[in-house]
Amino acid sequence: MTTVHDFEPTHFHTTIGSHEPALRVASGDTIRTWTVDSGGYDGNGEHITPGGNPQTGPFYLEGAEPGDTLRVRFHSIRPNRARGVTGAWVAPHTVDPHFVRRLGDGDGEDWWVLDLERGTAELENPPPGLESLGELPFEPMLGCFGVAPAQGQAISCATSGEHGGNMDYRGFRAGVTVDFPVFVEGGLFHLGDGHALQGDGEIVGTGIEVSMDVEFSLDLLKGKTIRWPRADDGTFVMAVGNARPLDQAIQHATTELLRLLEQDHGLDHRAGSALLGQCIRYDVGNVYDPAYAAVAKVEKALLERL
Amino acid sequence: MTTVHDFEPTHFHTTIGSHEPALRVASGDTIRTWTVDSGGYDGNGEHITPGGNPQTGPFYLEGAEPGDTLRVRFHSIRPNRARGVTGAWVAPHTVDPHFVRRLGDGDGEDWWVLDLERGTAELENPPPGLESLGELPFEPMLGCFGVAPAQGQAISCATSGEHGGNMDYRGFRAGVTVDFPVFVEGGLFHLGDGHALQGDGEIVGTGIEVSMDVEFSLDLLKGKTIRWPRADDGTFVMAVGNARPLDQAIQHATTELLRLLEQDHGLDHRAGSALLGQCIRYDVGNVYDPAYAAVAKVEKALLERL
Amino acid sequence: MTTVHDFEPTHFHTTIGSHEPALRVASGDTIRTWTVDSGGYDGNGEHITPGGNPQTGPFYLEGAEPGDTLRVRFHSIRPNRARGVTGAWVAPHTVDPHFVRRLGDGDGEDWWVLDLERGTAELENPPPGLESLGELPFEPMLGCFGVAPAQGQAISCATSGEHGGNMDYRGFRAGVTVDFPVFVEGGLFHLGDGHALQGDGEIVGTGIEVSMDVEFSLDLLKGKTIRWPRADDGTFVMAVGNARPLDQAIQHATTELLRLLEQDHGLDHRAGSALLGQCIRYDVGNVYDPAYAAVAKVEKALLERL
Amino acid sequence: MTTVHDFEPTHFHTTIGSHEPALRVASGDTIRTWTVDSGGYDGNGEHITPGGNPQTGPFYLEGAEPGDTLRVRFHSIRPNRARGVTGAWVAPHTVDPHFVRRLGDGDGEDWWVLDLERGTAELENPPPGLESLGELPFEPMLGCFGVAPAQGQAISCATSGEHGGNMDYRGFRAGVTVDFPVFVEGGLFHLGDGHALQGDGEIVGTGIEVSMDVEFSLDLLKGKTIRWPRADDGTFVMAVGNARPLDQAIQHATTELLRLLEQDHGLDHRAGSALLGQCIRYDVGNVYDPAYAAVAKVEKALLERL
Repeated sequence: MTTVHDFEPTHFHTTIGSHEPALRVASGDTIRTWTVDSGGYDGNGEHITPGGNPQTGPFYLEGAEPGDTLRVRFHSIRPNRARGVTGAWVAPHTVDPHFVRRLGDGDGEDWWVLDLERGTAELENPPPGLESLGELPFEPMLGCFGVAPAQGQAISCATSGEHGGNMDYRGFRAGVTVDFPVFVEGGLFHLGDGHALQGDGEIVGTGIEVSMDVEFSLDLLKGKTIRWPRADDGTFVMAVGNARPLDQAIQHATTELLRLLEQDHGLDHRAGSALLGQCIRYDVGNVYDPAYAAVAKVEKALLERL
Repeated sequence: MTTVHDFEPTHFHTTIGSHEPALRVASGDTIRTWTVDSGGYDGNGEHITPGGNPQTGPFYLEGAEPGDTLRVRFHSIRPNRARGVTGAWVAPHTVDPHFVRRLGDGDGEDWWVLDLERGTAELENPPPGLESLGELPFEPMLGCFGVAPAQGQAISCATSGEHGGNMDYRGFRAGVTVDFPVFVEGGLFHLGDGHALQGDGEIVGTGIEVSMDVEFSLDLLKGKTIRWPRADDGTFVMAVGNARPLDQAIQHATTELLRLLEQDHGLDHRAGSALLGQCIRYDVGNVYDPAYAAVAKVEKALLERL
Repeated sequence: MTTVHDFEPTHFHTTIGSHEPALRVASGDTIRTWTVDSGGYDGNGEHITPGGNPQTGPFYLEGAEPGDTLRVRFHSIRPNRARGVTGAWVAPHTVDPHFVRRLGDGDGEDWWVLDLERGTAELENPPPGLESLGELPFEPMLGCFGVAPAQGQAISCATSGEHGGNMDYRGFRAGVTVDFPVFVEGGLFHLGDGHALQGDGEIVGTGIEVSMDVEFSLDLLKGKTIRWPRADDGTFVMAVGNARPLDQAIQHATTELLRLLEQDHGLDHRAGSALLGQCIRYDVGNVYDPAYAAVAKVEKALLERL
Repeated sequence: MTTVHDFEPTHFHTTIGSHEPALRVASGDTIRTWTVDSGGYDGNGEHITPGGNPQTGPFYLEGAEPGDTLRVRFHSIRPNRARGVTGAWVAPHTVDPHFVRRLGDGDGEDWWVLDLERGTAELENPPPGLESLGELPFEPMLGCFGVAPAQGQAISCATSGEHGGNMDYRGFRAGVTVDFPVFVEGGLFHLGDGHALQGDGEIVGTGIEVSMDVEFSLDLLKGKTIRWPRADDGTFVMAVGNARPLDQAIQHATTELLRLLEQDHGLDHRAGSALLGQCIRYDVGNVYDPAYAAVAKVEKALLERL
């Protein structure tokens, strides 16, 4: 029997850190809650908290200690209002520096109408040229979530690291399991920054920013130590690296995937090299935030042969 | 009626430059030829030319002048011998610097048996742990191809740039069309460095290196000027950026994709921003070579709505 | 008349954040205090607090509010014990990745004898080849100091940012004035991580780590807003950028120096460009820490002509 | 007795490559010649060759073979006309991406009056704010010089690499000795791109561009193999790394300096680490060109103690 907590948030954090736990849960428990959007607007479009990817939580996982792994399983991530917003221009640092002058002033935003039944988004006032773009199917995800970092740090929800945070990876959707290293007692899981849809890279600085209803479970992997977030979407196992430049994010992710293959599948780094050389896949999470996110992954079907 | 040239190469180049044309062709002509592998070994396993991604060609496209675009359509890319080789270890620069000491000496190689009928590759002597990996399906591609660069340059086939070159992108397979800016008269198209299979990033420094039979056509897009290679695989239109760090490759590719949307689809950069923000996809070509390769792409089905 | 505070620290922080003020001072006040070394050892060689660049403070500057500038003037920075320690090997990320295997295991340390009278450091057990290196003159500096960052963040003393932090720049010595943006009430100035000597880049991961006696003053520049740390060493005015890659640190520093020229010397960016183009100097602070530090500077003698 | 060649160039190259030798010289010979400026203008202000850092030479050093070292000693580098030109704006990639919009259009140039007697440069039409800047003393240098690269490459004079090229380092002045790896028979030394003055980084894309009279000698260091350019300015020995990002240039330079210490001074990398850790200095050559330049150096006075 699974314990299900219906959690109504009343306070939000724009850093991920060792904040007062909002709720204590046991390994395996499920939490149903909601998140405001990146600007602090809730499902009624009310501005209830300052912007900056405000987080719901943190959730204290009983028994979690430094050196353990906290697993989150996202059961559902659903936009809970009918409008979302995106940036109007690709960010200057995602194009050639001399091309920045060819873009506009960088200001402004686009609003999107969200059809919660059909699961689609459509530009409210499409800029000239996109009048007939029409509906895009949702791919709801969370941009920013993770656990309290080590050493009493409180890290801005603008950025990311070993603890997760603002990874802005479009692959973090319902059905995905994400593991985090535990740095403090209880792990202290935070979540927020929902996107109804987002391109790779988050190059306009946003996905379709929207408040979300989220249902997830937390599990404790006692005694299992990892260094960077890992994930499983049913098809791939993944490791996430967060850093700038993207080259360094790639290095972190590749290294963690080699460790995963050793730890979970018994492959030493020679075998890991031979496998990944021809079979690794990289995804680009974001190339917008202070730390970029790279994902290294390999098919589970290949690992099942071994 | 298409003119088909059967071209038997006798000389190979390890730079891409303004070399003596090996064959002159008209726009629309098809060429059937073959390439040695990256080490200079041909379809019989004979070492016929020094290694370093030796190129077949160059092919002179009649009428091509600086400011035009040369289009290559790859009809088939097929391994023509039963063995290929890969590097044994992930490269030091693809993992965390402190992790390099955890890898082996970095030397050595793996040989793969290629079943040309079934289109599969299998490790000849799998390292411990991969004994049951079995067959991997081919995804034959060319790692290095492109046109002579401007200004009399002769650029090593180890690296890449606006002219193409050693992009090592696994998406460059049969069925794909790739466009290059023309920098010199005749364009001077070179090709080589076939891989029966390759992971994203080419992190062991190789794909499954093998000689190839290749059939392709060259078209002249007179008066069309582009800055970086572009491609079309039937599902996506793409722009390629080649540089280090990967961040800069991403900037080149994103910028060129915005230009493509303007030039080919009439979208100004405001509309391009709104579309790409939620719909762009990035692929990682290589993170091994002196210049890394990033691919920015967007679905053709979306563009057809506009 | 200057108020002088003799401050005896009893508690140390390994993050820079909105910690309880250790002392409240008025603008212009002078503080005499001491710092433990990066490992938490004091002037008696006692391990009195956990390592990680533990900070003395924070000092609350009366009247300082977000948008102001906090100025620190370092009057003296003096090693207060006769031994210091350095890392034994250059860090893997400061050499070519393939060269890492040519270095040793990266472990170990060197101890240095400090002659506090003569102001010199000498290797206690020089590795073979350095037996006759002899004495090196001190150039005492602080590696890590700064103000509480915005938004309730608590940032690890391993890294740096707009708030200062672990910049590890050898130019931050006695006689230098450093300005910081104020992000929180009171500014909350922290200091620690003394080095008797350090090369550019801090490539072995340390300077000669030692506890210090420090005397400094804090001034409030009411209503003056800056974005990144700035400094004045009598000969140069400087702006500091902290980021990875070093390219981005250079961008931050160059931008802030252009702003400084406008704000303090009335030069618009056109004039700033003409001046800096031929007269800017860059220093490399560190290329070891999570964020690298670059310093952009220009001679005060040139500015005095204008 | 030194052989002195007075060489009058008639042809210039905008790539560094295996071009027809312009003159053959023996080890120890001195050459007196001149260079056009980066735009192809000579000492009379005549436009005699296309721009792009056109090179005088190449000079064939008798006996030089791959694996040797070619040494150039610059005896004098003197502007030979009374006007030079600089870019008007700092380059977009040297400032924060969002700050690019705060700069002007990036176009335009400044002309400088050069007083060849006094050795000073003064803005012809100073932008507002710099009217009283007055004279700046020359520090004449060459921005682009080097030897033919391996493998038949011809590398654009816009960029740099192991072979030297467009390093744009202000430390390359008269009195300095620079060593290059020899990649082809005769080494094939090229030189050009004189700057009467240049800031660190070359952030406006130019120094004060001017034609030069140059006197230099070439020496053959038979059998000595190096990987990257090295230099000696009397006070420091140096190693140069050319790459992007600057982090990689730093890695190349640091690695080559460790090799230099081993090869020329018998210090293994453990001793090299201990020395460089506290004594290395870094200079920033350029952060403008396709490859950035970093210089790692250490005082000769320290090495003489060993």
